[in-house]
Amino acid sequence: MSKKNLITFGRAAVDLNATEYNRPMEETMTFSKYVGGSPANVAIGTSKLGLDVGMIAKVSDDQHGNFVLDYMDKAGVDTNYITKDIEGRKIGLTFTEIKSPEECSILMYRDNVADLYLSVNDFDDEYIQSAETLLVSGTSLSQSPSREAALHAIDTAKKHGVEVIVELDYRPYTWKSKEETSIYMTAAARMADVVIGTKDEFDVLENAGGHSDEESVKKLFNHSPQLIVVKHGVKGSKAFTRDGEVIEGDVYKTQVLKTFGAGDSFASGFIYAMKQKKGIKEALKYGSAAASIVVSKHSSSEAMPTVEDIETLIKKHGG
Amino acid sequence: MSKKNLITFGRAAVDLNATEYNRPMEETMTFSKYVGGSPANVAIGTSKLGLDVGMIAKVSDDQHGNFVLDYMDKAGVDTNYITKDIEGRKIGLTFTEIKSPEECSILMYRDNVADLYLSVNDFDDEYIQSAETLLVSGTSLSQSPSREAALHAIDTAKKHGVEVIVELDYRPYTWKSKEETSIYMTAAARMADVVIGTKDEFDVLENAGGHSDEESVKKLFNHSPQLIVVKHGVKGSKAFTRDGEVIEGDVYKTQVLKTFGAGDSFASGFIYAMKQKKGIKEALKYGSAAASIVVSKHSSSEAMPTVEDIETLIKKHGG
Amino acid sequence: MSKKNLITFGRAAVDLNATEYNRPMEETMTFSKYVGGSPANVAIGTSKLGLDVGMIAKVSDDQHGNFVLDYMDKAGVDTNYITKDIEGRKIGLTFTEIKSPEECSILMYRDNVADLYLSVNDFDDEYIQSAETLLVSGTSLSQSPSREAALHAIDTAKKHGVEVIVELDYRPYTWKSKEETSIYMTAAARMADVVIGTKDEFDVLENAGGHSDEESVKKLFNHSPQLIVVKHGVKGSKAFTRDGEVIEGDVYKTQVLKTFGAGDSFASGFIYAMKQKKGIKEALKYGSAAASIVVSKHSSSEAMPTVEDIETLIKKHGG
Amino acid sequence: MSKKNLITFGRAAVDLNATEYNRPMEETMTFSKYVGGSPANVAIGTSKLGLDVGMIAKVSDDQHGNFVLDYMDKAGVDTNYITKDIEGRKIGLTFTEIKSPEECSILMYRDNVADLYLSVNDFDDEYIQSAETLLVSGTSLSQSPSREAALHAIDTAKKHGVEVIVELDYRPYTWKSKEETSIYMTAAARMADVVIGTKDEFDVLENAGGHSDEESVKKLFNHSPQLIVVKHGVKGSKAFTRDGEVIEGDVYKTQVLKTFGAGDSFASGFIYAMKQKKGIKEALKYGSAAASIVVSKHSSSEAMPTVEDIETLIKKHGG
Repeated sequence: MSKKNLITFGRAAVDLNATEYNRPMEETMTFSKYVGGSPANVAIGTSKLGLDVGMIAKVSDDQHGNFVLDYMDKAGVDTNYITKDIEGRKIGLTFTEIKSPEECSILMYRDNVADLYLSVNDFDDEYIQSAETLLVSGTSLSQSPSREAALHAIDTAKKHGVEVIVELDYRPYTWKSKEETSIYMTAAARMADVVIGTKDEFDVLENAGGHSDEESVKKLFNHSPQLIVVKHGVKGSKAFTRDGEVIEGDVYKTQVLKTFGAGDSFASGFIYAMKQKKGIKEALKYGSAAASIVVSKHSSSEAMPTVEDIETLIKKHGG
Repeated sequence: MSKKNLITFGRAAVDLNATEYNRPMEETMTFSKYVGGSPANVAIGTSKLGLDVGMIAKVSDDQHGNFVLDYMDKAGVDTNYITKDIEGRKIGLTFTEIKSPEECSILMYRDNVADLYLSVNDFDDEYIQSAETLLVSGTSLSQSPSREAALHAIDTAKKHGVEVIVELDYRPYTWKSKEETSIYMTAAARMADVVIGTKDEFDVLENAGGHSDEESVKKLFNHSPQLIVVKHGVKGSKAFTRDGEVIEGDVYKTQVLKTFGAGDSFASGFIYAMKQKKGIKEALKYGSAAASIVVSKHSSSEAMPTVEDIETLIKKHGG
Repeated sequence: MSKKNLITFGRAAVDLNATEYNRPMEETMTFSKYVGGSPANVAIGTSKLGLDVGMIAKVSDDQHGNFVLDYMDKAGVDTNYITKDIEGRKIGLTFTEIKSPEECSILMYRDNVADLYLSVNDFDDEYIQSAETLLVSGTSLSQSPSREAALHAIDTAKKHGVEVIVELDYRPYTWKSKEETSIYMTAAARMADVVIGTKDEFDVLENAGGHSDEESVKKLFNHSPQLIVVKHGVKGSKAFTRDGEVIEGDVYKTQVLKTFGAGDSFASGFIYAMKQKKGIKEALKYGSAAASIVVSKHSSSEAMPTVEDIETLIKKHGG
Repeated sequence: MSKKNLITFGRAAVDLNATEYNRPMEETMTFSKYVGGSPANVAIGTSKLGLDVGMIAKVSDDQHGNFVLDYMDKAGVDTNYITKDIEGRKIGLTFTEIKSPEECSILMYRDNVADLYLSVNDFDDEYIQSAETLLVSGTSLSQSPSREAALHAIDTAKKHGVEVIVELDYRPYTWKSKEETSIYMTAAARMADVVIGTKDEFDVLENAGGHSDEESVKKLFNHSPQLIVVKHGVKGSKAFTRDGEVIEGDVYKTQVLKTFGAGDSFASGFIYAMKQKKGIKEALKYGSAAASIVVSKHSSSEAMPTVEDIETLIKKHGG
């Protein structure tokens, strides 16, 4: 059996996106349903780009959980290790509000949700060993027993030479304090081969703002990481390698509808290109192009682009 | 200041109703937002019928909570004692699925929701004294501190001669066990002047099925109740008085879209007619007519009929 | 089978009494172990006086739980309905400090203790029906599921004509708020035939101080109680009957070592004498004499007097 | 200011030791009170041996907490960072039962105890920097927020060149599962310079039995540890160094009264001798001698030997 290219680990959820734009959520009367959650989106995004992908997650044993499972199945993601919570916990919900392209906000239902109850007993170490790469979302570290499951998954991957990507994916809602966040985010990032996050998320790692990218990445390079990608939103991104290289990534301007989903599509494009051995510079382009496409559309998961979409966009901007 | 006709007490929530009918929720892709929760619906329903109504409730301090407050305000309900949960708890959600008129199901988000944190400190005894009637929903008894708040509200009403209606409104989701449900539902029903519930809900009160209506009501008449209404769905309803009268209420046939909201509109029509001194027989008609109208429409709260709607329907069926 | 005279319901615990007197607990280096908990003490006390007594309780499944079971067995109490907590919860502990006869304080371990997990499934309604009298301790109302078990036990007793005594036994430690205490203590007291408590405990019932005994008892006589005993410590006690009689009880002066256990021995003596049809006036004497004996000794349970001890003391004081 | 030789971190508790030996706890009627808890005992033990020692801990704000603070103060331990739990949590209790020298058991009260609520906000990073060595007890990793406080303390020590000793000190009672224990114990041990534990505790680290000492230590030497001590009870102990040395430590035979406290006195003697630059072989002797003395006496903390006691014993056995 050939190895899976990627297994993502963590949150699968339901997004309820306002169908009416440019108004406060109070006045939004209709919502459309999509699969959501950063690692679920990356699984869908990379599968759509042609990678062989699986996901380790826990969803609700109800209609919403069924919907997520079905959708991911159809998107080609291996869902054998997406378990159902038999104790009746619900799947997380994210209501999105698009007041304007610059003013997007979210309202999350994350109390006692199924994904935070993913445990070490819900997956086999063999499954992780069957992958080239494991991507763990930082949100899965926010509460027990999902926290221990994530730490165990990373440790298992490391023991067996599986590459580990940590996507910081910081969601304040489920964490108890900044100190706690910093402790576990840092522990996971130190064990990773690749760390991806926004500038703000690296500040959370430090539990302090005001650091330059260079300072943040320097500390992590004392540990396992080989490659660190810091995203600066509309200002582009920067990749740092352990041996001192710094590669800048640009942004493809587009008609922005909302900012949600940008990070997940970036990760999908970036990982796909890295797997194709296109090099870091080119991978940043694939990431930016994918992000650019998703922010111009209504959903995060459903809007994930194809390789053709990405390459067309890159070509349009002169490669 | 004249007295309020009615204050309802308990759950205010958000309903997310499938906009596509006759399909499983897994395949439902769009949901419409309405105010929900039994005592909120009764407050809206009776206000629309012209009563002077207030509500004691706790909602989330977010866009959904704002929506509910705004909607009820516009519906003419006094919202001065609808407080916001300052500890970040969310408002309850009910996703509805309409597979067919006979097969409706719901998916509730009720973990740690704001309404269960309504406490004795969130309202004044004076407010309760300012009403002719207090309606308490059984769901508010399901967890502390809302449970103690409800028991205290009933006790306060009784001390000051305010009529107490207990609407059993049994939702298994938030209760720990059948025994617990029976204990608190019974305690509240014994203190009430009027008890309204379905046959199933009276069985929950007994913590046993197989009782006739007569057996169930007989025990309660050993305590405070003067009037007990047992609803039998499409088979109509029966009202029992303490002095032995039994009044049957019929059902007005209609094109049923879904069964949700039938109970709340029934209670609204019934209470309105009782306040108008129309007598029990006539009040059962108003309740049935109101229920008949709501089950033919998409929402529960928004669909609440006017007096004219109700009376037109009754007349159409020969009065 | 003849009926049991008394079943007590609630807390069985372990007392750890300072063996050195008249010093702060910080400097106390040795502690002696006794059975403790108000309803356990009353069961032991009344059994020692010759009544046929059982207890409904939950203890830890460890050495301390075994000790309590063994001790009560040997004291002649029926322990068939003292169950063990199979989920590993501990039995409550009370460290006592005797700085001086006037300055006694206690340090309680009551977090998550076994007695608060006594549930409706831990006893049979038939057992309650097998008794003449059920005594419920107010402490058992302080948390779920013990709260529901106590309410259910009282309701079962009432349905089958078993006399109900509520001993208010207020311990602030396990209650969430004064409002909550008042709600459940009042609910239980209203259902009782006999209510026994200190002046302070009746103030807790009211959730307000400053009431006279007469005001407190008047409200309860609107409900089930036939007899109410208000204890005023060294100033004696007063018994009020539903038909307006007021009987004063005196105190027998003694060399006081500590005040713990006075209430439980009072209840034991009082209940014993009432069962012997000695009348209220005489029963107050038996209660006072029993209390007087226990406060002069080191423990609460072990020091419970015999009938001879009590009657000798009463005679010594001129009957 | 000169540096503290040692700061211990974690559990301070109260031991209640049976004063009667050789009988089951059910029949033990008197208990003597001592300071307990592994890191508290090591702080007292090393202070008694002449080291300059402090402790970071959280105790109850009651008589038992005062007792522990006073006792440690008098034993010369710096208690400036032993805080009191202002939310009313109790200090842990350990009742000990000495059926025979071979059959000792304990009964612990550890639910919601103060030490598990020690948080990162209860101490300053500067305090840790003021020490040569930080000793962290594995028990402090068993629950949040104490878990995060311990991980943060270790991380702070490492950043500032403070030596870290992890004493595995595994107490099953407070951990949720074997998997969880393994994850956090391993994380802490990997960051330590020195790891001390029994053979059983290293099996817990592995979450599997049947490993040889060599296999267990080999994995840890891939990370930070320089020195690992595995204790085999009456069969002695073995110290492993990162560069492959293995040093065996013998046991000094004595009249054993109970086995409690052996580990804490071993650690105290061992750390003291290492600080005196006596070498590993000699340090194992000091540890064994200290353990031998404590197991022949009634308490753990109070029985901690002086340097003279230890050296006399070693000399008696031929050095």
